Parts: sequence; structure tokens; C-alpha cells
Amino acid sequence: MTRTLSRPERIAWARLARTPRIGPLTFHRLLARFTSASAALEALPRISDAKPPDQSRIGDELDALESMGARLLACCEPDYPPLLAQLDAPPPLLAVRGDVKLLKRPAIALIGAREGSAAALMLAQQIAADLGAAGYVVVSGMARGVDAAAHKGALETGTVAVLAGGLDHPYPPQNLKLHEAIVAKGAVVSEAPFGAVARARDFPRRNSIISGLSRAVVVIEAALRSGSLITARAAGDQGRDVMAAPGSPLDPRARGSNALIKQGATLIESADDIIAALGDGACQRVRSQPVPYSRIVTLNRRQDCRKKSPRCSRRHQST
Amino acid sequence: MTRTLSRPERIAWARLARTPRIGPLTFHRLLARFTSASAALEALPRISDAKPPDQSRIGDELDALESMGARLLACCEPDYPPLLAQLDAPPPLLAVRGDVKLLKRPAIALIGAREGSAAALMLAQQIAADLGAAGYVVVSGMARGVDAAAHKGALETGTVAVLAGGLDHPYPPQNLKLHEAIVAKGAVVSEAPFGAVARARDFPRRNSIISGLSRAVVVIEAALRSGSLITARAAGDQGRDVMAAPGSPLDPRARGSNALIKQGATLIESADDIIAALGDGACQRVRSQPVPYSRIVTLNRRQDCRKKSPRCSRRHQST
Repeated sequence: MTRTLSRPERIAWARLARTPRIGPLTFHRLLARFTSASAALEALPRISDAKPPDQSRIGDELDALESMGARLLACCEPDYPPLLAQLDAPPPLLAVRGDVKLLKRPAIALIGAREGSAAALMLAQQIAADLGAAGYVVVSGMARGVDAAAHKGALETGTVAVLAGGLDHPYPPQNLKLHEAIVAKGAVVSEAPFGAVARARDFPRRNSIISGLSRAVVVIEAALRSGSLITARAAGDQGRDVMAAPGSPLDPRARGSNALIKQGATLIESADDIIAALGDGACQRVRSQPVPYSRIVTLNRRQDCRKKSPRCSRRHQST
Repeated sequence: MTRTLSRPERIAWARLARTPRIGPLTFHRLLARFTSASAALEALPRISDAKPPDQSRIGDELDALESMGARLLACCEPDYPPLLAQLDAPPPLLAVRGDVKLLKRPAIALIGAREGSAAALMLAQQIAADLGAAGYVVVSGMARGVDAAAHKGALETGTVAVLAGGLDHPYPPQNLKLHEAIVAKGAVVSEAPFGAVARARDFPRRNSIISGLSRAVVVIEAALRSGSLITARAAGDQGRDVMAAPGSPLDPRARGSNALIKQGATLIESADDIIAALGDGACQRVRSQPVPYSRIVTLNRRQDCRKKSPRCSRRHQST
């Protein structure tokens, strides 16, 4: 039931998705109500005064993406990442540069502090390399510190970086060389339009894509009140396994990851621990086809591994 | 229903308890069957060829204990520590030197590596001091490292050291000054006869008294295959809460405490965490009177806080 969009359909999807005040949830509701993005765009003036971007602007964006070897995947298309498609309101469109096939493989998110300790960076890189050797793709946010170490560890085996801004605006500057390496060997994805510079408010969506792409979110080192902690909690709400590497109670940089474990996250020390905690494999199966689009909208389901995995349910009960 | 033994009764208890091949379980069975230790001693030649020690030898031991200001408490007596009395087979006799009243107060065991890191020793001492300030007695084994740090932290508020050898043979030599301080301000207890030098095989019993005296056993730092881990697992079997302070996955000295958390022990970072994990107070109540002796023997009960505390039951389910 998946299908590939024509260029006019893709332009209509992008215009609707990028209309001010139309978030993913509204997008999916409009699409379900009007059955196509073009029909929803036609009806839009009757139900809202929001103006969609010009057709030509989106056409230019598609051309610019194509010229850098990137694609704009719609969530009904066969190449769209299957776990992400199972979210309540998946990003309607995801720009992908690099190896799009990586998005089909089972993935694990490794995240943590920008100001991570040397030990945390070493641990992140080692765990990423070991997860890669075991066949998992490593997803992270290309931030300084733990994120960068995770990407580096999995560069040869498969890593996906999720940007908060457009694909033409990789961030931060320190990681531009790493960004080029990921483009060459892995994949870089973003929900943001081409040309968009990341703002602080874009990071929660970026984080929900990191966890949405992944079977589990693993926090390597995080202080209390850190972004990693927010991501981990949101990942739990998405039904993802949440895991954390512990640290000394005397080290404030580990207080957030220790707090997650107190709240029910699985304590992990290695890639083996992560793989063991993924459980009986019931949750590990990644569909070779994304969910039929109609089911996403009408059933409004979430990936429900909670009923199968005691670890997921433990996490769920404790929050 | 508790009662204080006369000197002849105490001598009979000690002779029976120190007969070769009569462990605590057999002792309690014989006492239940023959209703008194003297009667059991009289019947002994008919059922076993084991020889009890001479009456005069035990009399000398009582005199020696008394001359150092110590007492030999029987598990039916009102001063015997109440939580210890609730074990399946409590030590029939416990030699106590120092402040016997400490044995009535709610206690928490803090144990850990002899070769603990500087951070672990600092943490143990701080947690012990904070537990003391909150009204808890700190129990440990007077070993080097974490044990000694725990005793030091709680020296002013109340600490109990459990020895594997007799009260006249404190061990190790490095801690003799600490031992004198605990005798003066806290309490030192032992199940071993006066004059006994600790052998390796005496430590498991010593450890079961550490946990038996305590509401919870907290492991501060322990490697895999360490004595602290064995103690913690045995404590779980006794129905005690098991807690552990985490450490970096890259530090092999923390691998055992991290393993305990993976197996269901509560992750703690502070005395506050420990007190919070003790739960609703249902388990915290320490009886002002020990359990009637007849009930100990006939019901063969264990302190069943598991049904009340979700943390206890979680630990129980996961082992």
C-alpha cells in the first residue's frame, strides 16, 4: 500500500507541510480528510488564512536537494524509515543525503553531553563501533561531545546524523569535517526545509526524529536538566527502550544518566548489554515495508513494543 | 515472651551452640525438640557422637568477655538485635562489646571493596555521616577500604562492626585504632567464640550478620566476583533491600555494583536516595521487643517486607 509520489504530488506535500501553523499532526489530518495534498491545498483558503509557500520555491528546493545528491522522502514512500513511519505523527517529509538504505536497518540512538568527559567519549565511540559490528546503525544528533564520538565510532559500519536545520546548514562548525564523512559513508537527514538555519525551538523535533528512527535511545553521559534527558523522556513516551550508562555519584556530569536509571531506564555498560536489553527480538524486527499510509492516519497507532518487552513496560510504569 | 538467661543456662546454650557439627539451624531444632539447651546437651550422646566443649571453658569465656566489658547475648533475650532475631536461623549467641543499645536502632549496612577508589571511600564516609544524621546506625565489616570509611563516617552517630573472629581478635591490623574507637563509641559484635582467629570460611557467616542486622545492604564499590557481591546476593535472599552506587563502565572496580543494579538492586547516589528507597516506613519499624523465641523456631519465618515494598519485590523477582 506504499507508493512513490510524482514530482507534482511531492511539491504539493511539501507546500502543505510547510504552510505556517500546519504541524505534522494537522498535516496528517488534512491529508486523511481531503485524500490528497493537492485537494487539501485547494480547500485550505476555506478553512484557514495560512498561506502555503509558492510552488516554484518548493520546486527550487527539490532541484537544490537533487543537485547535492539528496532526496525528499514522503512518509508514504517505500524508502521512508519504517520505525519513524510508525509514530503518531511522523514527519511528512524527510530530506535524506547519503546512503538511504541505512534507514531500513535496525538502529540505536546514542546521545549525551556536549561537554562529555574523556571517558564518556571513549565509551560512546567504543559502544558505537561494537553496535556497528553487530549490525546496528548508530543514530545521533551530530552535536559536539558524545554525539560526535558516537558517529565516529560507527562511521565505517553505518551512522545517521539528524540535523535541526536544513541539509545545507550542518551544525556545529567544529563538526563540518565529520559531516562530510557521514555524507560520504552514512546518511544525514533533516525535517527542516532546505536553507533553514537551526533555531533552539527546532531541537525537540530533531530529537524526536533521533528516537523515532531508533529501537532504543542510549544516554552515555548527561547532567541533570540536560537536553539528553529531555530526549530520553520523550523517547520513553514514543515507546522506545531507554537505556543509560552509569557514572560515579560524585561526578555531576553523570547525574542525569543516573537519574534515568533510577526512573527505570536500563543500566548498560556495553553494546552487549544494549543488545541483550532489546529483548527477545520481537521488537527488533523492522518491517521491510513502511506501514500503509492510511493506517498511520486512521489508527493513530504507536509502535507498541511495551506489551512485549518487560523493560519497556518497566520504563513506562515508572514515569 | 523474651527472657533473660541465667549463667548456667547461658553456659548450656554456648556449649550446645559450639558443639562441632551443630550449626545454628540444628541448634534451633534441638532447642525446639528438647525445650532447653541443658536437656538437649543431656540427650546429645544418644543422637550424636559430637562432643560439646567443657563447661569450665565456656565459664572462662564468659568471664573473659565480662572483663573486657562485653556480653554474650542469646537470641531469646530482650537486648538481642530484633532484625537478626527474625532470620530463619539467627546466631544463637552474639558477643557484643560497646553500646548494646545501638543494636535496637534501625540500621543500614554499607559495604564495598577493600581496594576502593578514593572517590568510593569519600562517598562511603559521606553517606555514612548522612545516614547517621538521619538516625540510622551504620553496620559494616571493619575491613580496609569502604568498610573502614563507612565506620569512620558514622563514628559519632552510631556504628556497629561485625567481626569474623572472636572479640579479642579484631582484624585487620591496619584498623586496630578504628576498632578501639568503635568499641568506645559504637559496638563490635561477633558470633565467633572468644579466642577464635578468623578463617576464610568464617566470613560468609560474618556477612550474613552484617545484612541480618540491617534494613538494607548498600554496596558502594565492588568488582565482579567480589565478597561484597556475594554478601549483597545473600542479603537479597534474607529479604533485605539491596542497593548499590553506580560507577563508570570503564572502571573495573565498579563492575560488580553496576551488575547488582542490572539485576534489580536500587541505584543510589546519596543517603537521601537510600532513605527514600526504604519506602513507606512499613519495613522501617523495628520492634522494641525481639520476636518470641518459640515463634522463631516453630514458624521458621523470615522478615517478610517483600509483600509491602515494591522495591523488595522487584529485587526478589529479578534474582
